[in-house]
Amino acid sequence: MAKIKVIGVAGYSGSELARLLLAHPHVESLQLIDRKAEEPIPIWKYRPNLRGTTEQMVVGKDDGSPAEVVFFATPDGVAMEHARSYLDRGIRVIDFSGDTRLRSPEVHKAFYGIEHKDPALLAEAVYGIPELHREEIKTARVIANPGCYATSVILGAAPAVRRGLVDPGKIIADCKSGVSGAGKHLTARMHFAECEGNFNAYKVTGHKHIPEIEQELSLLGAGPARITFVPHLLPVTRGILTTIYGALVKPVSLEEIQAEYEGQYADCPFVRVLPLGEECTLKGVQGSNFCDISVHLDTRAQLLILTCVEDNLLKGASGQAVQNMNLALGFEETAGLMQPGLWL
Amino acid sequence: MAKIKVIGVAGYSGSELARLLLAHPHVESLQLIDRKAEEPIPIWKYRPNLRGTTEQMVVGKDDGSPAEVVFFATPDGVAMEHARSYLDRGIRVIDFSGDTRLRSPEVHKAFYGIEHKDPALLAEAVYGIPELHREEIKTARVIANPGCYATSVILGAAPAVRRGLVDPGKIIADCKSGVSGAGKHLTARMHFAECEGNFNAYKVTGHKHIPEIEQELSLLGAGPARITFVPHLLPVTRGILTTIYGALVKPVSLEEIQAEYEGQYADCPFVRVLPLGEECTLKGVQGSNFCDISVHLDTRAQLLILTCVEDNLLKGASGQAVQNMNLALGFEETAGLMQPGLWL
Amino acid sequence: MAKIKVIGVAGYSGSELARLLLAHPHVESLQLIDRKAEEPIPIWKYRPNLRGTTEQMVVGKDDGSPAEVVFFATPDGVAMEHARSYLDRGIRVIDFSGDTRLRSPEVHKAFYGIEHKDPALLAEAVYGIPELHREEIKTARVIANPGCYATSVILGAAPAVRRGLVDPGKIIADCKSGVSGAGKHLTARMHFAECEGNFNAYKVTGHKHIPEIEQELSLLGAGPARITFVPHLLPVTRGILTTIYGALVKPVSLEEIQAEYEGQYADCPFVRVLPLGEECTLKGVQGSNFCDISVHLDTRAQLLILTCVEDNLLKGASGQAVQNMNLALGFEETAGLMQPGLWL
Amino acid sequence: MAKIKVIGVAGYSGSELARLLLAHPHVESLQLIDRKAEEPIPIWKYRPNLRGTTEQMVVGKDDGSPAEVVFFATPDGVAMEHARSYLDRGIRVIDFSGDTRLRSPEVHKAFYGIEHKDPALLAEAVYGIPELHREEIKTARVIANPGCYATSVILGAAPAVRRGLVDPGKIIADCKSGVSGAGKHLTARMHFAECEGNFNAYKVTGHKHIPEIEQELSLLGAGPARITFVPHLLPVTRGILTTIYGALVKPVSLEEIQAEYEGQYADCPFVRVLPLGEECTLKGVQGSNFCDISVHLDTRAQLLILTCVEDNLLKGASGQAVQNMNLALGFEETAGLMQPGLWL
Repeated sequence: MAKIKVIGVAGYSGSELARLLLAHPHVESLQLIDRKAEEPIPIWKYRPNLRGTTEQMVVGKDDGSPAEVVFFATPDGVAMEHARSYLDRGIRVIDFSGDTRLRSPEVHKAFYGIEHKDPALLAEAVYGIPELHREEIKTARVIANPGCYATSVILGAAPAVRRGLVDPGKIIADCKSGVSGAGKHLTARMHFAECEGNFNAYKVTGHKHIPEIEQELSLLGAGPARITFVPHLLPVTRGILTTIYGALVKPVSLEEIQAEYEGQYADCPFVRVLPLGEECTLKGVQGSNFCDISVHLDTRAQLLILTCVEDNLLKGASGQAVQNMNLALGFEETAGLMQPGLWL
Repeated sequence: MAKIKVIGVAGYSGSELARLLLAHPHVESLQLIDRKAEEPIPIWKYRPNLRGTTEQMVVGKDDGSPAEVVFFATPDGVAMEHARSYLDRGIRVIDFSGDTRLRSPEVHKAFYGIEHKDPALLAEAVYGIPELHREEIKTARVIANPGCYATSVILGAAPAVRRGLVDPGKIIADCKSGVSGAGKHLTARMHFAECEGNFNAYKVTGHKHIPEIEQELSLLGAGPARITFVPHLLPVTRGILTTIYGALVKPVSLEEIQAEYEGQYADCPFVRVLPLGEECTLKGVQGSNFCDISVHLDTRAQLLILTCVEDNLLKGASGQAVQNMNLALGFEETAGLMQPGLWL
Repeated sequence: MAKIKVIGVAGYSGSELARLLLAHPHVESLQLIDRKAEEPIPIWKYRPNLRGTTEQMVVGKDDGSPAEVVFFATPDGVAMEHARSYLDRGIRVIDFSGDTRLRSPEVHKAFYGIEHKDPALLAEAVYGIPELHREEIKTARVIANPGCYATSVILGAAPAVRRGLVDPGKIIADCKSGVSGAGKHLTARMHFAECEGNFNAYKVTGHKHIPEIEQELSLLGAGPARITFVPHLLPVTRGILTTIYGALVKPVSLEEIQAEYEGQYADCPFVRVLPLGEECTLKGVQGSNFCDISVHLDTRAQLLILTCVEDNLLKGASGQAVQNMNLALGFEETAGLMQPGLWL
Repeated sequence: MAKIKVIGVAGYSGSELARLLLAHPHVESLQLIDRKAEEPIPIWKYRPNLRGTTEQMVVGKDDGSPAEVVFFATPDGVAMEHARSYLDRGIRVIDFSGDTRLRSPEVHKAFYGIEHKDPALLAEAVYGIPELHREEIKTARVIANPGCYATSVILGAAPAVRRGLVDPGKIIADCKSGVSGAGKHLTARMHFAECEGNFNAYKVTGHKHIPEIEQELSLLGAGPARITFVPHLLPVTRGILTTIYGALVKPVSLEEIQAEYEGQYADCPFVRVLPLGEECTLKGVQGSNFCDISVHLDTRAQLLILTCVEDNLLKGASGQAVQNMNLALGFEETAGLMQPGLWL
């Protein structure tokens, strides 16, 4: 059983995390923090559907009590200032922001535009995709919870890159995300009247998730990765579908690639490599911590084509954070995470 | 622990029921039946999101094994033919169709257009709204799981009718339902291109849910109920919102009515009477077994106005069915039913 | 040919009006005004789909040039301050706000909460529903463009009230509106992630459109009208569907009521009374200036039930405003307004 | 003025074509044909929003009257059987199907799976993208109206291919289409409950639109084109967004590419090359015949990235067909096609 703190419970991923932790079998107590809360507020004021299911309150400040894990479900810039004080108190940190994802302070500065205030965090943090770093996560003090887009691209591309099937320097990721990925922030583009029935690309070059994808794929031993990454905004609340195009470096059959994917993810409870011929869909993963992958081959162009789906708030954020917590605290990896979603 | 059978698992409410029962803490074994299944088919072929979470199969026929409960998640006309054989084997029946909801064979024939094949079922069945018939459900052999619309109208109107606040003979229910309420059946009106962004009333008079609503509200002791019931189709997958208009029979304050509603539902874990001034929303209940009610008073017109929401597939169908099963088998009423939904 | 000014072109109904006027056969020149425009801005910056179809600019201030009509597509409070100066220059005013809709300054103050700054406007204004006030509109100097909800309720109820079929003191209007009706204003409730798949009532008593509905229905000679008016927010961009319940004061057949509706609207090009048995839908009117009405009778309850649909930005706002302009300037009533919308 | 016939008015693109032709300034008379119409049926029975705007009827059979143009808005296989008889009567044919798009009967057979019944049609037909074949269309007897996806890919890629900027043999088109592109046909995937909030790829290799794209891009003089084409289904009614990735063959700046695109489309009234930094959106083109293109450059990967949007029922089908008709009959290219859509 564990005592857990969550900083930043007002955002979409913060309140999603609260929902998961409230139902988690090994969470003993929970401190939920929203710095704008001037007095204790029931968590169901943030997520009205929780009304009647919990007495849990949200407070404006950490009370300084001990804990095993603190989650920073906060924007870029918060963890780099406050994580250190938790580490000093012996509390493991799981950070949702870009403050801990990159190993290089220079790359961090280039993509985030600010000087890092605690570069030692970058050096120490483990990138929190359990399918790549399970063992390191078990003993990590700082876990960088990956970006939602990054998770889908890395999980989709990693097996092919690791086995040297595709050129890691020429990967294209055409990504489509639901609206919740951009958070609660209100802009005209988020207004229902302007979003419903709409679709567009945005930030076609230079997205902040690029360096973490390249960092992780480069670690797989097939040479430095370079990603062309184009995000699009879907008129959908939850879910990311990423279509990955990778240039084959040698002839290989679709069946061999499929076997490679199935093999590499055989021990990963949250990655489902769909049988050949079945196409992954957002509905298949919304509300769950699963990532589904479909493998295709364009033999004429010698391109491997992967489609990967995840719920951006779960495997792309709060679900993966709980998966990381489970590993870090020695719980079963799937504890509190096996809800299949609603489908309809 | 109980052994359960579900007939009709291919439909939306049948597969939703399967999802609930697969996660139910007191279900020992499950036989899922789809008469079109020529060989055993994994349940996740019906609900792709269940892939990897269960090995449960669907079969084409009941194998005749013993069970505590059989659910008929079937269209009108099936239970009246087959329920008897289950009762004869000592298996309780929970029926989703109109075959068991009405006490009067004449009214049944008038609204359903066919002669009932087993009128004794009508005589024996208990109408399965636990908030009205909890004690009878505990010992019932046949439970008529209510219509989705009917549940929302009855739960919304019952406290006012029971206490004699409104004229039961002049109730108007303006109902709005998501598309899943009409089932998987494909019609042009269900085509995404024709449904998205659309809204309309349908079957403005004579809907089949009218007689069960009038039957149940008439049993509350305030005189015979007559309902004007107008359903509308929302461009939404899940959820019903019902707006009820009731003519006050004597002056009463909003606060008194609110207190009445809170009092009558104090022991009902799935009905949340929202505080005055808070408006219930579909998002508040989607994915859960809750019914939320907001109470309003138009003092100029002396009309009580209630808004009630539920998830038509849960409190309006499969969730309520499990709630009924829990009572009938002596489990805790909330067993397997406290998931709060996703909200976003 | 006419010279036209539009004040408030930045809002949804203002830019919709601009779209209509740009395609209007009798508009000679157009001055579009957005007080936030610091320098001239192409109109397609406000409506990106207009790019390449017009060179029309938006300016920050009226240049004082002569015109036949000025539209105030502005929030409550603007027209009462500025309309007078246009009238003094001989320019007819068509006002989209609540500043001119009510004849009584007292009622205005009761519902809008502020003292009217130019009560003579209230006295002079003609309520701009051409189906009720066509002749007065032709000579009016001030036309109060009705509220979107009000238009649908009045058009739906007027024939029955005028003919004395229903009790004008007991009308219930259960209204459902798309999101654009609330304008561009950003609130959490308008965020796509919170609006999509959602539905709820709001402002269940005391909505500002009540007094204009009661004023207009009371003028029909059947006694003072009293409306119970409950608005709901649909997860749809455009369109209002209103369901009206009216208590019959004497027995009358559905066919007689239908004939009455068809007769009273025979000369109204934008009201389509659908044949008995056909149900009006939002898709039938989105993108057009039509209002469709379906007539039903609940004989058991002796209730007339009407469903009425309109596009809230067209017949509920900018389309009706152009219809009023056409009448006021002696153009054909339908000029520039016969686009049927897209349906899909 | 022209006499026009439309075969296949029951489908989405057929009825959309009817809507356009009914408002077309140079159409003298219209014969609308739906072979399932046993007796004359008003066109508004197919498109309810047209009610009250036209008396036009749909008939079950061509009456053999003379005409200038016949449109085949029919599935694959119809035009190859019936077009010849119209040509013999001196009536130009504009075909929406795959029966006339390819010049090679062998490629036709490979992708459509059937032997062509009138290969001379393939030889004679002009591929109906006016931006590529304006002059030939003016004198063509048979015009192959392009596929919706194909239009967006070809318009997006053509300028870069024509100028030799990208390798025509390595183009990737990641396409996302609204649901109406699949027509009225009812399948589970089209059910609102399964489509809303969903997104997925389909037919990841071997789509029928590939050969027409490769045929047209190969004609541009830069060598044989090979396309990787991956379609996805958006939960949107109208619109296609295509993201094209092309490998630069030599260094070139973004500004030079932009200038190339603007230059090549300078005389094309329906293609809008957006200014650098502006991102095209579905809302910008829904309801109009425009195709919008945004140009980007990934300098690290030396990839040209284009996003192109169109309304699949207009520039992707019926609008382009009218544009072709305008050219073939000597009308102004934009006649009847300048409606900007609704945006909201």
